[in-house]
Amino acid sequence: MQKLISIVLPHVKAIMAPKKVTIVGSGNWGSAIARIVGQTTKQNPNDFDPHVRMWVFEEMVDGKKLSEIINTQHENVKYLPGKKLPENVVAVTDLVESCDGSDILIFVVPHQFVPKICSQLVGKVKTDATAISLIKGLAVHKSSGIRLISEEIQEILNIDVAVLMGANLAPEVANDNFCEATIGTKKKKENGALLKELFHTDNFRINVVEDSHTVELCGALKNIVACAAGFTDGLGYGDNTKAAVIRLGLMETTKFVEHFYPGSNLQTFFESCGIADLITTCYGGRNRKVCEAFVKTGKTIAEIEKELLNGQSAQGPLTAEEVYLMLENNNVVDKFPLFASVHKICKGEMPPTAMIDNLRNHPAHL
Amino acid sequence: MQKLISIVLPHVKAIMAPKKVTIVGSGNWGSAIARIVGQTTKQNPNDFDPHVRMWVFEEMVDGKKLSEIINTQHENVKYLPGKKLPENVVAVTDLVESCDGSDILIFVVPHQFVPKICSQLVGKVKTDATAISLIKGLAVHKSSGIRLISEEIQEILNIDVAVLMGANLAPEVANDNFCEATIGTKKKKENGALLKELFHTDNFRINVVEDSHTVELCGALKNIVACAAGFTDGLGYGDNTKAAVIRLGLMETTKFVEHFYPGSNLQTFFESCGIADLITTCYGGRNRKVCEAFVKTGKTIAEIEKELLNGQSAQGPLTAEEVYLMLENNNVVDKFPLFASVHKICKGEMPPTAMIDNLRNHPAHL
Repeated sequence: MQKLISIVLPHVKAIMAPKKVTIVGSGNWGSAIARIVGQTTKQNPNDFDPHVRMWVFEEMVDGKKLSEIINTQHENVKYLPGKKLPENVVAVTDLVESCDGSDILIFVVPHQFVPKICSQLVGKVKTDATAISLIKGLAVHKSSGIRLISEEIQEILNIDVAVLMGANLAPEVANDNFCEATIGTKKKKENGALLKELFHTDNFRINVVEDSHTVELCGALKNIVACAAGFTDGLGYGDNTKAAVIRLGLMETTKFVEHFYPGSNLQTFFESCGIADLITTCYGGRNRKVCEAFVKTGKTIAEIEKELLNGQSAQGPLTAEEVYLMLENNNVVDKFPLFASVHKICKGEMPPTAMIDNLRNHPAHL
Repeated sequence: MQKLISIVLPHVKAIMAPKKVTIVGSGNWGSAIARIVGQTTKQNPNDFDPHVRMWVFEEMVDGKKLSEIINTQHENVKYLPGKKLPENVVAVTDLVESCDGSDILIFVVPHQFVPKICSQLVGKVKTDATAISLIKGLAVHKSSGIRLISEEIQEILNIDVAVLMGANLAPEVANDNFCEATIGTKKKKENGALLKELFHTDNFRINVVEDSHTVELCGALKNIVACAAGFTDGLGYGDNTKAAVIRLGLMETTKFVEHFYPGSNLQTFFESCGIADLITTCYGGRNRKVCEAFVKTGKTIAEIEKELLNGQSAQGPLTAEEVYLMLENNNVVDKFPLFASVHKICKGEMPPTAMIDNLRNHPAHL
């Protein structure tokens, strides 16, 4: 019987049509990913249709349409200047058209746009399509406090949603620097190998795990920890203190996952989505930078975002607020002194210097 | 019966003599720890004799004996200048005398001196004394390749040996910056609370675990990982690559412990001795620094140690060599491409640029 299966399977694979892929989003990270997906689909034409559509929110750049620039110059001059996109990645400005008939939808847009984008796609995507979310963040939910972005996409579109997270600062990925990423999919047996093939390159190494909630929560919660790391930098503390803060942040992350999404695998925190992304974000990310400047300048988070991030917002303070509400609703604020401190500091309700005092009697020390 | 025990125990405790403590070593780290132990013993006179002896290898500093400077100025002007030692820490130059009658021996000397020091103490220490090793490194053993320092002390002195490891750059500990450390003791029930009390302060937070082999191996192997991190810095790679290298180094650390000291607890790698120490060492430590300079200058490790470390040696390249021999003896080099690469690069047998190629097909990606 086993032999029979092994004879039949390649045949089944051969007659299955190559999967159509759409990238929903074309910002900095979306464009960096487009470079990878353009390459892997071309290299694996049996599995993927190399014609990759990328949904572009139309804007004018120097009097030209961004979508036309991408389709003629093969460069996203606004969000990833200086890097060529593969020619098989094609900009499409109509959202529904960009996803029409696609088997794999890669979501990579700012998380606040997810509900609106998904609503427009209801009934317009294949019922057996798979989504994969590259969006780091959390959605706010009226009753429960937070909701995962993957849950939000799944609920609106009623399709399977995997996630891809990892230590992936977009400019470095676009430079083809060696790095790793983690795919979390509850259907690892069914789609794990295919999703890996879609993203795995010589310089972007993928591991696939089933524990997708943990993968996604690591991607969201690390931004809170990076804020705490930024405060220690701003206060002039050294490497020991910063490492302790990062570690305690990781402990709270594991406890948070355990409390709200029980059944996680401790091993997942050792993947790129876990410690590696945490380290990268706490040393090189923008949440760290914003929070360091917050301490040093005494300005508000909003003012610093305007100055340092060109008006974009850092996810950490937002996520900290959402998480804090959830902790309050569940009466477990005391178990998460680092997460709670970050929120209060960002809101100006607590001085940054008080953070370390709140960590001295951390539950992890008992 | 339970009630009886709870009545009797405080009485037993009260009549037990306070423990005598000796610090065997007075270098940079030993002196930083002396500041902590001097304080905790004074604060807990029921449990500890506040008269703490510190063994000092006598040297002349500006025409004066170092031991006399310590006992009059209460400062180790050679190895921890500018920081006062508590007056209850007393320098003793005779090794055997310094340990005579002590209940707790804190070993904090360079690892190559352990056999000689312990040999001199055979039959001279209390048979029920407890040692605690703060020494990061491995001993070389003719037949098996490596041996833990705690095993070496235990075998020579035939007493229990605990370990203390963590994200503890000595100058920052001496500055009373907030940090954490991990104590590993196989007799957690018997001596865990006492050892914690001896080191736990407001700014030096201790967790105690039973998994002492893992604690100790984390302290030794992280130096190899820090070399790899230093190579990526020297080669100009960004944060993603460095995070991936650190993560793969941690994966090899967990596999190494699993292979050679089975029965470890994955949770231990989340303690300060694990990820926190790894992060600190890969960003702030001297192994990283030496290996970065190695790539940038093209000089040998020995030449760089002379220039940057004032002749002291970085543990990473030595540990990598010892570990490599052990991997070879056990035919498992292939499973540890990062450890093996670090050794070969330090020896000049492989160019640093080849390291990333060796990590592309890392077993952790399969």
